[in-house]
Amino acid sequence: MSAAAITPDWIAVDRGADRLRVWAMQGATRLAQVQADADINPHAPDGFDQILRAATAGWTIAAGTPVVACGIAQSPQGRAEAPFRAVPCAPLGDPGAVAPTAGGWRVRIIPGLSQSTPPDVMQGDETRIAGFMSLNPGWDGVVCLPGTHSRWAHVSAGEVVSFQTFMTGELLALLATQSVLRTTVTGGDAGAETDAFDSGLADAMARPERLAARLFGLHAADLLEGTRADAARSRLSGLLIGAELGAAKPYWLGQDIAILGAAEPARLYARALRTQGVPATVADPDRMTLAGLTAAYRAMTPAT
Amino acid sequence: MSAAAITPDWIAVDRGADRLRVWAMQGATRLAQVQADADINPHAPDGFDQILRAATAGWTIAAGTPVVACGIAQSPQGRAEAPFRAVPCAPLGDPGAVAPTAGGWRVRIIPGLSQSTPPDVMQGDETRIAGFMSLNPGWDGVVCLPGTHSRWAHVSAGEVVSFQTFMTGELLALLATQSVLRTTVTGGDAGAETDAFDSGLADAMARPERLAARLFGLHAADLLEGTRADAARSRLSGLLIGAELGAAKPYWLGQDIAILGAAEPARLYARALRTQGVPATVADPDRMTLAGLTAAYRAMTPAT
Repeated sequence: MSAAAITPDWIAVDRGADRLRVWAMQGATRLAQVQADADINPHAPDGFDQILRAATAGWTIAAGTPVVACGIAQSPQGRAEAPFRAVPCAPLGDPGAVAPTAGGWRVRIIPGLSQSTPPDVMQGDETRIAGFMSLNPGWDGVVCLPGTHSRWAHVSAGEVVSFQTFMTGELLALLATQSVLRTTVTGGDAGAETDAFDSGLADAMARPERLAARLFGLHAADLLEGTRADAARSRLSGLLIGAELGAAKPYWLGQDIAILGAAEPARLYARALRTQGVPATVADPDRMTLAGLTAAYRAMTPAT
Repeated sequence: MSAAAITPDWIAVDRGADRLRVWAMQGATRLAQVQADADINPHAPDGFDQILRAATAGWTIAAGTPVVACGIAQSPQGRAEAPFRAVPCAPLGDPGAVAPTAGGWRVRIIPGLSQSTPPDVMQGDETRIAGFMSLNPGWDGVVCLPGTHSRWAHVSAGEVVSFQTFMTGELLALLATQSVLRTTVTGGDAGAETDAFDSGLADAMARPERLAARLFGLHAADLLEGTRADAARSRLSGLLIGAELGAAKPYWLGQDIAILGAAEPARLYARALRTQGVPATVADPDRMTLAGLTAAYRAMTPAT
């Protein structure tokens, strides 16, 4: 399909923490997908607008074509631009007011969800959850969303009842790239040595308070004996996912679990749950995002 | 005292993870102290030599003046250049072979200590422990050394029996400066809101596996309600020190504790221990380093 043929009904946008993707859509059909220019700061006053214009430059877009966006939208002060909706509630609410942008885009932003006790927020995962629910009507259970911030959400009777977010992915990235463990784990594959992953997982679940000591132990073991990067990286993932699994037990114990995550983390979380005797189904998060954005688009345009 | 008058018997060096200090010494008396030029890479082949020359340029140094150094000395591959000594052992061993440097310095390096189970290492803290022991002969108990990597060491009958290192300080620094918590805690003082510190400490000791969720909770609470940076920074410290205290319980329970740490972390660790009914004495770590280096110098030059 040549670029000239791309004439979307509507445009779908996922604003992730570290990437922004834009799809040209015709109903539920994906015509084209582009990844936004990473050089444009999406948090600048007209950054989102600039990104949209650059990403869609090759498409033929009619005036008034709706744009439906989910994900993180923060001002430089770190505040969300759209109010959160408090759980328990359906994952998709009224997409609400159109946020007009400098370029005349009519962007509708799917509001994130919040929880007051314990304080928690999600921006983007509510859309993935909605996508999963739209593809699996009537499903009750727990959705696990691994990522920079991994998240467990209890879904029942079409609503998100409660959720809990963990900084696991961000901790992993900081430790692997910025800490004293850098040289020990660089180049290692977290899924390569399952024994190291499993023993890290079991150690962390048994004695989660020892995490900071076990992290230094990875460095010490490498200094004293030399360790394979694959084994160290696998154990590091096992330790951090194990601590999370210990804390998220009220979410996964005796529940149906759906993991919406990219290939590697999804595989590790599924393995971790399997060691606890809990089966999980895995679904592609990008597909769920697009299904959720499509559900939101349909809800706001009943005639379509 | 003018620079021309500085004629040291020997030179003491502490090679920390993030700074290198050099003292001109006459017996146990400090004549002068300089902080090394941070622009010189101490891990370059002749970096240490360059640093010594630059730092001591104003001093009058006789040929053969001994240099006694402790701390981290790593090649670019991350391996220690001097072999570790395995605990249980006295904190100061034979300072061993002279490491000749390009500039003709006769540098003696105090070997670090290692432990095989669980794997652990220290490089520098053995000298601070030796300094404390030289100033407190016959003391038995547990030495706590807060820092980038905080460490608990059990000292008995003149030997380091066992020790455990935690990445607490490094985790704190990464979270406060590189993570999503950056905007929430920047400018906050970890000692400013003792209630927030104490509740973080208690929460982490009670349910250490929830650490990664509580970290995200700091971010969510700030987004939803806005939080004071002092309170968030205090709670962050409480959470991380609380997890460490939970794991280090076999070290501090029913023991005499000496904290060798800089003012702020020492105050926080002392407060944390006090909440557990454990009193601790606090000693200045730089003074302990110099006392330990002096003890090492005396051991290698019995005639002095």
